[in-house]
Amino acid sequence: MVFLTNKNPCTETKVMIKSELFVLTYGALVAQLCKDYEKDEDVNTCLDRMGYAIGIRLIDDFLARSAVKRCRSYSETADMIAQVAFKMYLGVTPSVSCSSAAGNEFSLILDKNPLVDFVEELPAERASLCYCNLLCGVIRGALEIVHLAAEVTFLQDRLKGDAVTEIGITFLRKAEDRKHRRNK
Amino acid sequence: MVFLTNKNPCTETKVMIKSELFVLTYGALVAQLCKDYEKDEDVNTCLDRMGYAIGIRLIDDFLARSAVKRCRSYSETADMIAQVAFKMYLGVTPSVSCSSAAGNEFSLILDKNPLVDFVEELPAERASLCYCNLLCGVIRGALEIVHLAAEVTFLQDRLKGDAVTEIGITFLRKAEDRKHRRNK
Repeated sequence: MVFLTNKNPCTETKVMIKSELFVLTYGALVAQLCKDYEKDEDVNTCLDRMGYAIGIRLIDDFLARSAVKRCRSYSETADMIAQVAFKMYLGVTPSVSCSSAAGNEFSLILDKNPLVDFVEELPAERASLCYCNLLCGVIRGALEIVHLAAEVTFLQDRLKGDAVTEIGITFLRKAEDRKHRRNK
Repeated sequence: MVFLTNKNPCTETKVMIKSELFVLTYGALVAQLCKDYEKDEDVNTCLDRMGYAIGIRLIDDFLARSAVKRCRSYSETADMIAQVAFKMYLGVTPSVSCSSAAGNEFSLILDKNPLVDFVEELPAERASLCYCNLLCGVIRGALEIVHLAAEVTFLQDRLKGDAVTEIGITFLRKAEDRKHRRNK
């Protein structure tokens, strides 16, 4: 990541763009990684790592521009990711559901995923590719900077024939805190 | 480019996004190519080729959504690229100047280049890198689909210490046409 510095981005007027050039550029990135790595797992790992490096920088931009308040719960945080961050950077708003009694596991359900707008289906030899895995890394990196450790993975993917695309977010620290409290 | 199909992108409401995730993702792409290729020239060529493959697809989106009329001159075409396409996909409007008596060479001058928002300067060992070379390929590819052959290169780059960033576009066919006419 030689080109990513800590310099703050230009703070001029909020600039909005159409997503297509981004989406096609992302396709070029994934295609390049598929050239570089034979195994889908390695491409997925690389996309996740790149995303992480992006997320830990993007969070500054997000906090500076979105003027959001501090989230008080994991539920609020998940809603914030879906309703503010996804809307801002991808132009879509996933629906959110909590998928654990402990209240630390959430699903973002994307009916529409702009990142795959130009992709019809995965090639047969790339059946295990998580095409959008960069997003998981971005979310994980951004959350880490606000002191929330999380596991973020694709649980369903329309590119793989699932009915929807679903990103699972499991917040890790609260569970540990709770265990800790119980053990006292 | 295994993931780029000819499928038309989603034709829902025009979706606008903030550019930062795109800009950081582009940085990750360039960084990956710098890992893959030792020579800056090879990275530049690769970025140009990727851009070309993107441009020949992006032009469909551009024509469908911008509702622009057919350009009647190279000058109009250069203005269209700067005022409509750059604005649409990058959120900035370069100024345009014609730099040849023959009327087929134009410069797009970018006071602000969003693609380098997070880049401070090129590393010393990457002094010949055209960081944004993808853009040249995109313009070249898009123009080719509307039957305009062009050479597109960076003439100046603020990342390399120049006062502005300048993309040069030389339209090729008209010159040939003129020669052809003269030879009749």
